Amino acid sequence: MTDAIRVIQYGLGPIGAATARLITERGNLELVGAVDIDPAKVGRDAAEVIGLDRVLGLPVRARLAEVGAAADVVVHTTNSYFDLFTDQVLEILAAGFDIVSTSEELCFPWSRNAEAASRVDAAARAAGKTVLGTGVNPGFLMDSLPLFITSIAQRVDHIDVTRVVNASERRGPFQAKIGSGMTVEAFRTKMAEGRMGHVGLSESVAMLFDTLGRKLVRLESSVEPVVAEKAVKTRFFDVPPGRVRGLHQTGHAYSDNGEFVSLTFRAALDEQPDGDTITIRGCPDLTVKLKGTNGDLATVAMAVNAIRRTKAAAPGLVTMRDLPIVTA
Amino acid sequence: MTDAIRVIQYGLGPIGAATARLITERGNLELVGAVDIDPAKVGRDAAEVIGLDRVLGLPVRARLAEVGAAADVVVHTTNSYFDLFTDQVLEILAAGFDIVSTSEELCFPWSRNAEAASRVDAAARAAGKTVLGTGVNPGFLMDSLPLFITSIAQRVDHIDVTRVVNASERRGPFQAKIGSGMTVEAFRTKMAEGRMGHVGLSESVAMLFDTLGRKLVRLESSVEPVVAEKAVKTRFFDVPPGRVRGLHQTGHAYSDNGEFVSLTFRAALDEQPDGDTITIRGCPDLTVKLKGTNGDLATVAMAVNAIRRTKAAAPGLVTMRDLPIVTA
Repeated sequence: MTDAIRVIQYGLGPIGAATARLITERGNLELVGAVDIDPAKVGRDAAEVIGLDRVLGLPVRARLAEVGAAADVVVHTTNSYFDLFTDQVLEILAAGFDIVSTSEELCFPWSRNAEAASRVDAAARAAGKTVLGTGVNPGFLMDSLPLFITSIAQRVDHIDVTRVVNASERRGPFQAKIGSGMTVEAFRTKMAEGRMGHVGLSESVAMLFDTLGRKLVRLESSVEPVVAEKAVKTRFFDVPPGRVRGLHQTGHAYSDNGEFVSLTFRAALDEQPDGDTITIRGCPDLTVKLKGTNGDLATVAMAVNAIRRTKAAAPGLVTMRDLPIVTA
Repeated sequence: MTDAIRVIQYGLGPIGAATARLITERGNLELVGAVDIDPAKVGRDAAEVIGLDRVLGLPVRARLAEVGAAADVVVHTTNSYFDLFTDQVLEILAAGFDIVSTSEELCFPWSRNAEAASRVDAAARAAGKTVLGTGVNPGFLMDSLPLFITSIAQRVDHIDVTRVVNASERRGPFQAKIGSGMTVEAFRTKMAEGRMGHVGLSESVAMLFDTLGRKLVRLESSVEPVVAEKAVKTRFFDVPPGRVRGLHQTGHAYSDNGEFVSLTFRAALDEQPDGDTITIRGCPDLTVKLKGTNGDLATVAMAVNAIRRTKAAAPGLVTMRDLPIVTA
């Protein structure tokens, strides 16, 4: 393991536990520390917390400063929002580590969170380290992948991406996040509070517009409940008819010349068929259909696969459009 | 046009003429010269040769040295093979220009043409310039695109890419290249001479293996004629029943653990339905189906879209896996 990249896992929820497990399976990576604030995890061996059948000899620490191991990169999987993760990211940079983060708002922060992004970028440059925000969505399906596909387009007039997720196969927190089991009224109340639904549509829109040289003049977003017509049962939820089994979210983004991007994210229990469709209108017209892009497996894969590129990248806050292609 | 990248088009066949036209349509690019050895083109205004309805004031020159314009990047679209293009590439580097080339063997030359590639790489570094080989295939569909899709894979066990092209919609030289109108006997004779069929399968295989850390131990290739059952007519060919209407080419590539990559390229007149399918077996299994990736339009788009990234890249011979994603 002498040439292995040394990684600290920061955040041991379902995604963080899975990235940590995958790191331990890769010969060119070495898990050297694990951080989580949950008192039920602190002090236990990381192997036990992430579900490995062996001992790693790495006790989970409540704070990064307590890890004490020499490391190269921190994989950061805690939460979606700048106001919640900024201090964590600054702490990691101050400790001298590169960061791969699955925080949605980091995937392309130069529009909605430009000021906070500039602070992170400045801190990264000062530390000589790199921060990458990535994941499957945002980070891939609705932004960097359609952008890479435009490489074979002479002209792009419009981009549509539609993602349909059968949430029955996803982790419990995801099923909860899309409103599973709620009444329609409770769904709408929580939506009005602003933190219901998929985070990242506006980050994807911003990456598409900025990279393709369009000026975003208006973004119309909506989130609607998908209501169960018959009872739906998963490992985590029992949804009677009339209750919410998921959500249907859209974003329509306009330049001065009309709509340039439309994004649809529909995630619901028992939703069939699932899959993703990218439709690019221009010269030539292009259609790309994807099957199998399981959001949990894929986000974990992307976070771990991006470690090598992030370590090699120039200092600063970067996004998926700035790095050479990430690969398995 | 003060900030525009100044481009010389080197090679004015169908692909080169189309790239030159697209360059003139892009506000951030400026066509400043055109080179072709064809005596029927030399001395005429480039606009007339590439099919523009206006005058560019750029006479086509037989040699790069005669262009005399200050420039940044040369788009090189002449031929597929190292033994034919190496002197051209070295001449362009010596003149101090970055190069985007559609030469298939340049797309990933580190396996079959490692020695020649090293010479080009050394010349590029000495000149402080970048050489990129790209296109839709090789360069995208069977290599950099599947590689980018593996970014969301935790494990990759096997990659299959199948491309079916309806050649009826393609340029005359392409229809000729796939054997249209030949007898089966003539097809097999020409195939035995080694320059029949699509160039680039082994470059794509090499990029996949090298990037994903596999050792290529065996590559089995085959090219078979596709024979017309009924008469087929295009703008360029009149194929009676029993004659060749295209080719079916396969490559099966093995590591020590068995087959890791299989590539199929089928291009024929009146071939329906066309389209591309990428199938990645691993965790998760992924399927990607593409429609509309017209090889001529797409290669032209890729060559022009890659100009900005190539100009910004570090010196040396680079491939599509080394650059940040190319976009429209």
